[in-house]
Amino acid sequence: MKTMKATVFHGANDIRVEEVSRPHAGIGEAVIRVTLTTICGTDLHILRGEYPVKPGLIIGHEPVGVIEELGVGVTGYKIGDRVLVGAVTPCGQCRACLSGHLSQCGHGDGYEALGGWRIGNTINGAQAEYLLVPSAQANLAKIPDELTDEQALLLSDIASTGFSGAEAAPVRLGDAVVIFAQGPIGLCATAGAKLMGASLIIGIDGDDTRLAMARRMGANVVLDYRAVDVLAEVKRLTGGGADVAIEALGTQQTFEGALRCLRPGGTLSSLGVYSGKLQMPHDAFSAGLGDHRIVTTLCPGGKERMRRLLSLVQSGRFDPTPLITHRFSLDEIPQAYQLFGERSDGILKVAIKP
Amino acid sequence: MKTMKATVFHGANDIRVEEVSRPHAGIGEAVIRVTLTTICGTDLHILRGEYPVKPGLIIGHEPVGVIEELGVGVTGYKIGDRVLVGAVTPCGQCRACLSGHLSQCGHGDGYEALGGWRIGNTINGAQAEYLLVPSAQANLAKIPDELTDEQALLLSDIASTGFSGAEAAPVRLGDAVVIFAQGPIGLCATAGAKLMGASLIIGIDGDDTRLAMARRMGANVVLDYRAVDVLAEVKRLTGGGADVAIEALGTQQTFEGALRCLRPGGTLSSLGVYSGKLQMPHDAFSAGLGDHRIVTTLCPGGKERMRRLLSLVQSGRFDPTPLITHRFSLDEIPQAYQLFGERSDGILKVAIKP
Amino acid sequence: MKTMKATVFHGANDIRVEEVSRPHAGIGEAVIRVTLTTICGTDLHILRGEYPVKPGLIIGHEPVGVIEELGVGVTGYKIGDRVLVGAVTPCGQCRACLSGHLSQCGHGDGYEALGGWRIGNTINGAQAEYLLVPSAQANLAKIPDELTDEQALLLSDIASTGFSGAEAAPVRLGDAVVIFAQGPIGLCATAGAKLMGASLIIGIDGDDTRLAMARRMGANVVLDYRAVDVLAEVKRLTGGGADVAIEALGTQQTFEGALRCLRPGGTLSSLGVYSGKLQMPHDAFSAGLGDHRIVTTLCPGGKERMRRLLSLVQSGRFDPTPLITHRFSLDEIPQAYQLFGERSDGILKVAIKP
Amino acid sequence: MKTMKATVFHGANDIRVEEVSRPHAGIGEAVIRVTLTTICGTDLHILRGEYPVKPGLIIGHEPVGVIEELGVGVTGYKIGDRVLVGAVTPCGQCRACLSGHLSQCGHGDGYEALGGWRIGNTINGAQAEYLLVPSAQANLAKIPDELTDEQALLLSDIASTGFSGAEAAPVRLGDAVVIFAQGPIGLCATAGAKLMGASLIIGIDGDDTRLAMARRMGANVVLDYRAVDVLAEVKRLTGGGADVAIEALGTQQTFEGALRCLRPGGTLSSLGVYSGKLQMPHDAFSAGLGDHRIVTTLCPGGKERMRRLLSLVQSGRFDPTPLITHRFSLDEIPQAYQLFGERSDGILKVAIKP
Repeated sequence: MKTMKATVFHGANDIRVEEVSRPHAGIGEAVIRVTLTTICGTDLHILRGEYPVKPGLIIGHEPVGVIEELGVGVTGYKIGDRVLVGAVTPCGQCRACLSGHLSQCGHGDGYEALGGWRIGNTINGAQAEYLLVPSAQANLAKIPDELTDEQALLLSDIASTGFSGAEAAPVRLGDAVVIFAQGPIGLCATAGAKLMGASLIIGIDGDDTRLAMARRMGANVVLDYRAVDVLAEVKRLTGGGADVAIEALGTQQTFEGALRCLRPGGTLSSLGVYSGKLQMPHDAFSAGLGDHRIVTTLCPGGKERMRRLLSLVQSGRFDPTPLITHRFSLDEIPQAYQLFGERSDGILKVAIKP
Repeated sequence: MKTMKATVFHGANDIRVEEVSRPHAGIGEAVIRVTLTTICGTDLHILRGEYPVKPGLIIGHEPVGVIEELGVGVTGYKIGDRVLVGAVTPCGQCRACLSGHLSQCGHGDGYEALGGWRIGNTINGAQAEYLLVPSAQANLAKIPDELTDEQALLLSDIASTGFSGAEAAPVRLGDAVVIFAQGPIGLCATAGAKLMGASLIIGIDGDDTRLAMARRMGANVVLDYRAVDVLAEVKRLTGGGADVAIEALGTQQTFEGALRCLRPGGTLSSLGVYSGKLQMPHDAFSAGLGDHRIVTTLCPGGKERMRRLLSLVQSGRFDPTPLITHRFSLDEIPQAYQLFGERSDGILKVAIKP
Repeated sequence: MKTMKATVFHGANDIRVEEVSRPHAGIGEAVIRVTLTTICGTDLHILRGEYPVKPGLIIGHEPVGVIEELGVGVTGYKIGDRVLVGAVTPCGQCRACLSGHLSQCGHGDGYEALGGWRIGNTINGAQAEYLLVPSAQANLAKIPDELTDEQALLLSDIASTGFSGAEAAPVRLGDAVVIFAQGPIGLCATAGAKLMGASLIIGIDGDDTRLAMARRMGANVVLDYRAVDVLAEVKRLTGGGADVAIEALGTQQTFEGALRCLRPGGTLSSLGVYSGKLQMPHDAFSAGLGDHRIVTTLCPGGKERMRRLLSLVQSGRFDPTPLITHRFSLDEIPQAYQLFGERSDGILKVAIKP
Repeated sequence: MKTMKATVFHGANDIRVEEVSRPHAGIGEAVIRVTLTTICGTDLHILRGEYPVKPGLIIGHEPVGVIEELGVGVTGYKIGDRVLVGAVTPCGQCRACLSGHLSQCGHGDGYEALGGWRIGNTINGAQAEYLLVPSAQANLAKIPDELTDEQALLLSDIASTGFSGAEAAPVRLGDAVVIFAQGPIGLCATAGAKLMGASLIIGIDGDDTRLAMARRMGANVVLDYRAVDVLAEVKRLTGGGADVAIEALGTQQTFEGALRCLRPGGTLSSLGVYSGKLQMPHDAFSAGLGDHRIVTTLCPGGKERMRRLLSLVQSGRFDPTPLITHRFSLDEIPQAYQLFGERSDGILKVAIKP
């Protein structure tokens, strides 16, 4: 068998499931047979032409699978091992990686923005029957036998990103944390704030299903921005402002809201991707006067990150499966994209089975 | 003697040196006889009506003096001790202070933005013959005999603020650091980057005198933005972007330049006070994608901070005196304000002797 | 009423409940009527003459109470407020406090070991009807109405200390943490490791009741050192060593076990007080070769710390009440000391009601 | 040419320069022609049989050289590039490396103590004409043309280790730092404390030449332990204890002195390798009571670390060349070992030219 089915981007609003040639593992690489994958909000941006990738690219960056081929120089694995691969696949050996900025991996001595995110971005991705994994030695995380593919699937990107919103702040014991937007990333940020010991966790959204899920993920208060003055309510609940505000959507409203909700000296942890112009509310941000910090994080990857996230699921500390609301085969992926794009039917995340 | 000379703000562009009643020390307070003080860029904003204070306020927040009165409950000092007081005077006992945010001191259980900066802001200030020091136990730093008043003067605000620009990043051994604007704060940030072990320190300004002083304070490269493409040059010198960019002016240009100069994962340390609208360059700041951090710092204060800065001068590690370019008596302070406002005659900082 | 009942240390193995004069609040101080207190392991050391205090001292350092008197200069409180006071009462205004080392408060410009722990150590303590609280502005934490005295009691010392064992490391998301000794402090350290997001929490002790309580506090594995080879088992469970080991007893065995259990680069967080000679196992600790860290922490205090701990109880994230196994009146405190010293009857912590 | 000269360990006190076969580069490896190397204190331990290596091993771990062969998969370099290789050669792709513990590289999914230090320890080393560099992509640091081999040589180990003593603490602006022992590592720790902004740097030794060099490297006070009571003097100079004490010898005396010199809350940064039993002075270390920290660091390696150190030399911030006091050819290495072992003739470091 030389070919496989894959989801190929052909141009804005034009993705097709088609037969393409199967990848093979070169030096330091591996090929996995994808057993489960999903669709990310970023994939929607790609589909709509808002985030540029080359036509002909296989998209998708969240793979669970089984090792099919191991390239020269990859050790400690065997064909058939079940593995999880993070959305970001650092090489571990460049200037950025050796500085600890795995997500900004530059594959060499220089720096390249977004360099760590390769699969489904600059090289072929995971919404396919097979995936070539670069820098395999650093990126194949074995999945414990006790865990199902669905338990592992969301760790690749949204749990790693969402948790990092809490970790980058960092959330401290007894903190008051407010999370703007309770989509899949925001929900994981909510879970992350709980895992790190916040005492007051306020989840904000305007969708009843998501607010209900926010409670399930750890929010002890949820605010519906359609119904209450969010800023006033946060100030009241926190006695003057949140220690940490996590922004998980990428709009002027959520960014500004998050900044205004902070106490003096508080931290805005921003996860959203801003596609339009962003205005700093200078009365809330006048540099030194507020001692504020703004931190941003691209989904941490690499096999050790994945191992840690798997261990949290394995020990029962975190259960991502309630976020998987819909399931499709790879052939049905166009319908999955449509539903995911519409945010209809209470959809949060889909599981795609090649 | 019941009265004293002081610099009183009466309204926009109206400050007068006049006789006012002398302060006396209440519980936990002290009064110092001011022997040297200076004018800050923030005082210019006050003078111009851009930063609001109440008419009738004595302005100025950078005092060197001698203890004249000690209130009940202040121990370990005696009348006549030479002391330095930071521009920010934390109480040490409120929620913010006990959380380590001394600059955002709230004087109680709540949070109040800018709470730590009191003298010359919400209570009477230092451009006078006498100054009442609140929370004296936490704010009187004894000046070693070996040091002159001029050696201590600039530590109260600009050195503490400038150094904190490097500390908040933090600058690490071997970092490439670029400092936008080489006014007094930026020059101290340059000195701070050197003190913390940066290997490449790039100072940026458009004024020859300041660029020359930048070299003296530790810059190994200076760039004149009138003559070169700063962004391209920084990228070239750093091999892809600075580890840390310190912004020390508070304009759209310096903020945006600082953000664009960063390598992926780099930190913008912002010291300037932005009075107008601030636009985020979203191609440089798209949250997680760049793993950037923006940190802001209000001048750290308190006697322990001052003790540490004094120790750096005492050991010869830092010499602030070249920044004092002009000297005036208190009566001449209107001329000093004029010259300082015009930035003429190569002025950097003035020393005012009451 | 001029006198009160109090627990007075008269010499080794000689404490008596007797009538002594009531304290009154001086400048910056407060007096609280103690409504609940407890006995600490350190009090046992005092009783046995192993930790030196002056004869005549009222002992005890964990008070819950009601404000009875407020000294001059203490604001924001009123007589009758229910408050919690930490075992360590920092002044907030000395060199150590302003450096962020509240526990090592020196009450002045110098440093003094243990300076922050005053009540029941260098000044009169809490096992009495009334307690004088020094530096009251920094140390009175209001108790939310929803919480009972018993819910607040253990936060003063053991929860603050135990949690700090996890915070000082710090425990990171997905860490493997092992806690040596599951007495009250170790149990709180176990709870702290859970609150901070450890995935694997291994509690070690040789007492069945304590091992059962360890599970309740968050351990997902417990090891009985009487039955298993602890070191081998930890290495096996963690795949090479723990990220963090918390030592909560203060013996050669627990210290050495904790050090040997670490992975290369791991951290030993030590809470125990070592009274005898301590031998470093140099094959486990050969400095740089293992990249190990050893951190120690004295119970963090101050009203902001107490506020944060109260918020964790209020939000249901932590419930300390199962640790209170016995209750006594102040008159019965000698029996309480005896039972606590014997560690009999499944005792963990006692509540003493004056 | 198939053979080369190399320094081979044959047993305790038996090293010989002899002809052995030349190495060749496998996948991901490189071979460099060594142009300069040196002898480390650790090599003396090997020579004396105190640190175990396999007979037949080529020793030495501090190479400067020129790329001779590049294995498959190594990119961005060309034959003839001048490079510096750190003593520790992390793979960048294992669990330890991806966690940021490059020095504890485990070359796989487990942890292995000392794993990062391979050359001259578990694989052939640098005191030879040619050296095989493992994980070459992560470990070849190009040397700027402006720098000589001698300027680069000491960065591989002693500067990286010595600086890390200051970085691991970390030293903060205005700190008082005391460094026990002023051998090559201690001298670099002294330079590191200066680079990071300590105000008071106290160097301790009992050798006049080394004390003089300590001043040159940045100490503003030196203490000769033969002449003064070091502990009393440090307490006096620092007003109660050092913020940071760096131990750079590995004896009971230096370890204990460093611990006793600390202020409450201070940090002991330990670089020495302890070969005998180590007694903790429990009156100085009683865990939580002193809030002390003990940190240990194994020489940080990898090409990015080397690049940073090279940049500090290139910018004139650090000059290691005064530490090279003697020069030998590879044939003369036995004499070099003898002189180095005797610490005679004012020797600090030797340069060995193959």
